[in-house]
Amino acid sequence: MRISILGSGNVATHMGAALKNAGHRIMQIYSRNLQHASLLAYHVSAEAIDDLNLIDPETDLFIIAVKDDAINATVKQLAPHHRLIVHTSGATPLKDISEWSTPTGVFYPLQTFSKNKELNFWEVPLCIEGSNEVITQMLLDLARTISNNVYQVNSDQRKMLHLAAVFACNFPNYLYSIAQNLLSQQELDFNLLRPLIKETAEKVQSELPAAVQTGPAIRQDESTMSAHLQLLKASPELQDIYTLLSQGIIKMK
Amino acid sequence: MRISILGSGNVATHMGAALKNAGHRIMQIYSRNLQHASLLAYHVSAEAIDDLNLIDPETDLFIIAVKDDAINATVKQLAPHHRLIVHTSGATPLKDISEWSTPTGVFYPLQTFSKNKELNFWEVPLCIEGSNEVITQMLLDLARTISNNVYQVNSDQRKMLHLAAVFACNFPNYLYSIAQNLLSQQELDFNLLRPLIKETAEKVQSELPAAVQTGPAIRQDESTMSAHLQLLKASPELQDIYTLLSQGIIKMK
Repeated sequence: MRISILGSGNVATHMGAALKNAGHRIMQIYSRNLQHASLLAYHVSAEAIDDLNLIDPETDLFIIAVKDDAINATVKQLAPHHRLIVHTSGATPLKDISEWSTPTGVFYPLQTFSKNKELNFWEVPLCIEGSNEVITQMLLDLARTISNNVYQVNSDQRKMLHLAAVFACNFPNYLYSIAQNLLSQQELDFNLLRPLIKETAEKVQSELPAAVQTGPAIRQDESTMSAHLQLLKASPELQDIYTLLSQGIIKMK
Repeated sequence: MRISILGSGNVATHMGAALKNAGHRIMQIYSRNLQHASLLAYHVSAEAIDDLNLIDPETDLFIIAVKDDAINATVKQLAPHHRLIVHTSGATPLKDISEWSTPTGVFYPLQTFSKNKELNFWEVPLCIEGSNEVITQMLLDLARTISNNVYQVNSDQRKMLHLAAVFACNFPNYLYSIAQNLLSQQELDFNLLRPLIKETAEKVQSELPAAVQTGPAIRQDESTMSAHLQLLKASPELQDIYTLLSQGIIKMK
């Protein structure tokens, strides 16, 4: 397939590399910043552009991997070419880009990407939606050339998935950061906690989280919980977080 | 070293196996439940007992791996043998078991253990404290026969570490469980989130959490956050958790 990618961030970079490796031809990389576009374009043997008027319409698929609030403006400029356009956003319903007379879809990778960290794209869940059944099928086939975890997911489901990802990724990372701050108060190295963090995530790879919940709250160990709250007495915000999450855990029983 | 273990739970099981593999002699396994004691004793070629009066005093070290609220009663019964006694608890200060005229210490493994899940004990951080310098050194040496992550940690530090572990392990697991419940509302499989959970924990193995924070809160993306709160309108508790954690993330900037 001939594919052009709009955007040069983490999603564009990882998805572009996976598509190139799978044998697709990457035509153009667009970014408002030509240097960013050039860097990715070089890796996937594509042309870099920083002006949407320079788009080559001889492409089968436009993949939009720009910030959510720039998706609409980008689609508007691509629509007149009447090619298939997909976005890669968890939070954007398909209908937001379907108002133009061009086929559209969604190609949402449910993963957290870092520019400098390699990642096996075959394991990345890809959530696919198309504006009709033919397009859905075509996008599912394309997705399976780069991932072993391909799901058909409608816009309502994707919205929930995006919210769930905040609970499964963004919030745990924030809690790791609180833990690190607590350690530094006692001049302890974050390395002490890294194996625990890793194992906690490993455990739920084969079990459901509710089945492996541990800690003072699930044991209703009141004396440990009040000792912990006492330790947090200098940070009312952390006490609130501790109390709210512990109450939630107690209700799991 | 000749070692006896009091307890037959997850810590006793994993530590007992590691000590046995390192060439130490496990003398006895004590549990109130003889069947539990026998199961572990069989694996480490030890004698199973369910009565502390049957303790063989010809041991160099007693390792107490019982529930926190049973530690004191156990130490009291072992103290008359005047052998080295250590506990394995994060939440119990050394002084709680030091009131008897016997050498004492702490041998706290900072990890979450599951009975049925294998784990590389060499990577488990072991936090060591002794009632004097000679004992501390002896326990550090012993710890290094089973782990490459040995730390000397005093009781105040260990208390903070135990609290930090709640933020790094117990709370993230609860958030995974919330995420799973949200998915099931849309009949989505938890498998969709597993790679994200794993990668989120992987990322902080080489980076600090604050450096890799992602999501709507750190971007101060108000429209996504209010859409998420709207999706949670049937669960005020989850809205509270979402708001509190998002506010914390916003303050990280």
